[in-house]
Amino acid sequence: MNEAATIPGPAIQTLAIVGVGLIGGSIAAAARQRQVVSRVIGIGRSESRLEDAVRAGLIDEGSTDFATAASAELSIVCTPVDRIANDVRSLAAVVPRESLLTDAGSTKQLLCEELADLDGREGPVFLGSHPLAGSERQGFENANADLFVDRVCVLTPLETTPTESLAALETFWQSLGARVVQRSPLDHDRVLAHTSHLPHLLAAALVGMLTENEGELAATGFRDTTRIAAGDPSLWVPILRHNATAVIEALATLDGQLEKFSRSLEQDDTETLQKLLEEAKRKREGLG
Amino acid sequence: MNEAATIPGPAIQTLAIVGVGLIGGSIAAAARQRQVVSRVIGIGRSESRLEDAVRAGLIDEGSTDFATAASAELSIVCTPVDRIANDVRSLAAVVPRESLLTDAGSTKQLLCEELADLDGREGPVFLGSHPLAGSERQGFENANADLFVDRVCVLTPLETTPTESLAALETFWQSLGARVVQRSPLDHDRVLAHTSHLPHLLAAALVGMLTENEGELAATGFRDTTRIAAGDPSLWVPILRHNATAVIEALATLDGQLEKFSRSLEQDDTETLQKLLEEAKRKREGLG
Repeated sequence: MNEAATIPGPAIQTLAIVGVGLIGGSIAAAARQRQVVSRVIGIGRSESRLEDAVRAGLIDEGSTDFATAASAELSIVCTPVDRIANDVRSLAAVVPRESLLTDAGSTKQLLCEELADLDGREGPVFLGSHPLAGSERQGFENANADLFVDRVCVLTPLETTPTESLAALETFWQSLGARVVQRSPLDHDRVLAHTSHLPHLLAAALVGMLTENEGELAATGFRDTTRIAAGDPSLWVPILRHNATAVIEALATLDGQLEKFSRSLEQDDTETLQKLLEEAKRKREGLG
Repeated sequence: MNEAATIPGPAIQTLAIVGVGLIGGSIAAAARQRQVVSRVIGIGRSESRLEDAVRAGLIDEGSTDFATAASAELSIVCTPVDRIANDVRSLAAVVPRESLLTDAGSTKQLLCEELADLDGREGPVFLGSHPLAGSERQGFENANADLFVDRVCVLTPLETTPTESLAALETFWQSLGARVVQRSPLDHDRVLAHTSHLPHLLAAALVGMLTENEGELAATGFRDTTRIAAGDPSLWVPILRHNATAVIEALATLDGQLEKFSRSLEQDDTETLQKLLEEAKRKREGLG
């Protein structure tokens, strides 16, 4: 059909997705809906889940065998961060040498360091991705073809990353609706410690403090502030461990911020309190 | 019209609202829409704002003079917490002795202590209210007749509060759709330190930490967690000062919680980290 049409066919013949959950499933749905790929192969650990994903129309074929991805031009590993490096290696062993490998993990420094040899000189290229989209809900049942629309996707190239790989991956994410930005893996992890990993710990700490009879008096503000604490611990523990240095640093910085609030309350220093809250309000409004 | 109908007329002839902003305006809108009152009088500091509120159909009459509330059976003070006690005194000087006075403030202990003499023996009764509803948006332009539907409203009676006053105020808030619970003023303030005041400080501290180029990588989770930091500092400073003791205590408790996270990351104690996040997830899901 594509041969007969004047419109060019999909840019990618075969896309492999390792880990067909919320993110992997949404990438599959988005790529198919936007006709960016001809064929989506899902790789996972549970045959029955993969069969369900085929039946749900998200992937064309599912397999527990990485060799099924042998013809993929692009592969995206969407497993928890402590499994990504291994899964990328398994793919690298079977895909063509001109193939591009990426991931969707929330931490980048450890991973990119570990996979730095995959620079295209002797095999496929690995280039880190982190689409800033998600949900506290799990599983491909919650997949959403518009999950990446107007969301930022961070690419973390190394100095050795081939320019054409970077351009191809940028085009791919843009075709799913994402806005692509570049950061070094280390910068990515430091910023995400502030914008994602620390907020997660705070939400968990706040909820953790609550005694049973206090929940009744928790209004919308509390629910908003702590929503992310419902995220899956088995995903978050590896993220926090991977980014432990930056998260510990962020906790110390926060401690200093909270100390200012504590001191201004103890000393009834209204001026400082007002200034701190005004600065926060201005910054928050700046985020939109 | 009410006289001819078989349905009884509104339970309250005149309701006075001091401070016709988001909360005061929403109480007015809710009470009128549900035909709980015949007439709503707004008391405020700006004549032109009150005229606007009359034109917007929220109140029947506006005045900068407390004496206008002289016939009110129920008066609700919706001003910032550092002005409530004074405003209640101004009302107490003009309303009938069988009249009921309440407020909508976020702190209760200082206020109820200060107004404990208003127990109905020699004049009107003051009984504290705190409807757990609001928005980071300000002004009666954002008033919403359904703001209190299915929201908790805390009443903080003292031992000296007459039973009939408590019953009447409970009925009033219920008629606006709220679910009424009772707490002692001190209990209220301690719980709210955990569920509202501390989360506000944390949201402000998190946003305050953000440098300019980090905002771009702040996704939905960060925005949710920090939304309340956009609240008006001129409302929040008095709240935090009024509840300083409980908030300082809450900050110390939080510090202990965060210390656990920090230590588990430093020691790579996966088991503790997993346990802390699982407990938080369970508690957060319990809130619904």
